[in-house]
Amino acid sequence: MNFNTVDYNREKNALVIIDQTKLPGETVFLEITSPEDAWEAIKSLKVRGAPAIGVAAAITLAMVAQNIETDEQTSFLSRLSETKDYLAASRPTAVNLFWALDIMEETARNNQTLPVEEIKKILIEKALELKEQDLTVCRRIGENGLTLIKDGFSVLTHCNAGRLAAVNYGTALAPVYAAAEKGLNIKVYADETRPLLQGARLTAWELQNAGIDVTLLCDNMSSSLMQTGAVDAIFVGADRIAANGDTANKIGTSALAVLAKHYNVPFYVCAPTSTIDLDCATGKDIKIEHRSPEEVTNLWYEKPMAPEGVNVYNPAFDVTENALITAIITEDAVYKNQGGFKWQR
Amino acid sequence: MNFNTVDYNREKNALVIIDQTKLPGETVFLEITSPEDAWEAIKSLKVRGAPAIGVAAAITLAMVAQNIETDEQTSFLSRLSETKDYLAASRPTAVNLFWALDIMEETARNNQTLPVEEIKKILIEKALELKEQDLTVCRRIGENGLTLIKDGFSVLTHCNAGRLAAVNYGTALAPVYAAAEKGLNIKVYADETRPLLQGARLTAWELQNAGIDVTLLCDNMSSSLMQTGAVDAIFVGADRIAANGDTANKIGTSALAVLAKHYNVPFYVCAPTSTIDLDCATGKDIKIEHRSPEEVTNLWYEKPMAPEGVNVYNPAFDVTENALITAIITEDAVYKNQGGFKWQR
Repeated sequence: MNFNTVDYNREKNALVIIDQTKLPGETVFLEITSPEDAWEAIKSLKVRGAPAIGVAAAITLAMVAQNIETDEQTSFLSRLSETKDYLAASRPTAVNLFWALDIMEETARNNQTLPVEEIKKILIEKALELKEQDLTVCRRIGENGLTLIKDGFSVLTHCNAGRLAAVNYGTALAPVYAAAEKGLNIKVYADETRPLLQGARLTAWELQNAGIDVTLLCDNMSSSLMQTGAVDAIFVGADRIAANGDTANKIGTSALAVLAKHYNVPFYVCAPTSTIDLDCATGKDIKIEHRSPEEVTNLWYEKPMAPEGVNVYNPAFDVTENALITAIITEDAVYKNQGGFKWQR
Repeated sequence: MNFNTVDYNREKNALVIIDQTKLPGETVFLEITSPEDAWEAIKSLKVRGAPAIGVAAAITLAMVAQNIETDEQTSFLSRLSETKDYLAASRPTAVNLFWALDIMEETARNNQTLPVEEIKKILIEKALELKEQDLTVCRRIGENGLTLIKDGFSVLTHCNAGRLAAVNYGTALAPVYAAAEKGLNIKVYADETRPLLQGARLTAWELQNAGIDVTLLCDNMSSSLMQTGAVDAIFVGADRIAANGDTANKIGTSALAVLAKHYNVPFYVCAPTSTIDLDCATGKDIKIEHRSPEEVTNLWYEKPMAPEGVNVYNPAFDVTENALITAIITEDAVYKNQGGFKWQR
């Protein structure tokens, strides 16, 4: 099945996404034409994954810009900024969201002397450029990550940092796809990733679709699996990387990193450079989103699976300390941990 | 609510259990009168938890003995042994099952010169003795474990090793109940424990019932929780402890032990002495039960949560290496890890 996870329909001036809350049962594409629907789609994880959210927000802002009815630049920019702030409030942790929205706003400001109709066109082109850039970046992450993979490797991954987390191809799974394209025989173990089961629903689905050998396990089984020696490397994505390399990613990632160290398995983080937030000195500066108890107690279940009214701890992300990360793979380089990370740019 | 998780109804010659697959939605007690139904109840986890399984098997064997229609001792013993072997095949990992069945068979053999009707009575009394012994043992585990708990402690536990895993009171939760009885203020964090959610369904339910502060989390959230400093100690049960202290317990336990070491949190295993299997030199000798893929892909869900036909890794237990265990608490003692464990008997 060939599609982009996030795209733009020029004719309908619509953001087009695959509804990830419906997978793996149904393959539904949504055409979104209002900022409210885009906000809701991001908040409710119809579109998720740091790179995908960034591109979706950029396309949404460009789309909304087309509908602003004014010829007056200041008024246009002011309404654009309002929508930008609104979209930025949808989710707090992934930095790509803010990064993409900032680029879009900056693009508008840099062209503010042009007629509004011109700015509108430029914004569409910029959003599409970010989309193309994401494709290129993910391809390059794949090529860089491929240097760490050998034929016959078994790779463990958490959550979904595959094609469904980006425009296509993905980040953590990019090296796996690159390996498969070269004809290497790769086996993937996918953590189901509670509470929202992105591993079971999305990673297993997209790998199965791509004809790659995938085995599902519950999050608490990875220690047992590593004990058997079945895992050659762990590849995960990132929602935000602090300047020192501390990495926020889907809840459970830090546990895998601790286990990887204990069992001597290399632990790799794959992400676009845009995920590195130099304004965050360490992981302590990263705001972690906490989500509703119902995600843990009710979602997906047909009978009660927890007693009514029980307290729930439900952070969506955790921070993996830099010392536990073997290397961070971006489109630019494989940054090996040499007592820390020195970024090229 | 006052009940024993496992009991014997003398009038009906029935094993009585609370059906744990129905919790927390429904509180259903089952009266089981055939070895086939008992086997199925153990296999399908209607009764589960190493101590509870042991007592349930002992009561089942005593119950079946009542129905053996012969006055001839050799024939009686032979049919008893058949049932024993049948029940022993229900689950492979928890040693208490074999331990309890061995005691029952030995009791019959030690009395094989008596009239069959006498042996039958003795078997009932022995099964009830094992039940009473379990209550006493759990109380003493609670008292011993209490020495490791302070007022205001937050305790993390995995799966269910509470009253529902024993006749009453439990093993890992026994120190928590003992603390609560003394008026100490204890907070419990309960891992939901995929795939069968014993933490969400059973531990949360029984602690809420007992008026103890309980917070539920997904298994992959314990690293994040320990990072916040919220966990003072981890208490888990055991299905089998090897002679060197390696401990088989619910899948995910070994991950917690690795995390506990990384975050400097004490890691305690609570179990009756009957769980220590001196015939197993190390954890490598413990047979680990693997269960069906459907437990991971289908159970509890109303819509597909994994693509059809996906491979699944689903071991029910893992082994925690002895070096990661701070202490093992039995009814006899708190065995601190001093470069190993030296059993008193």
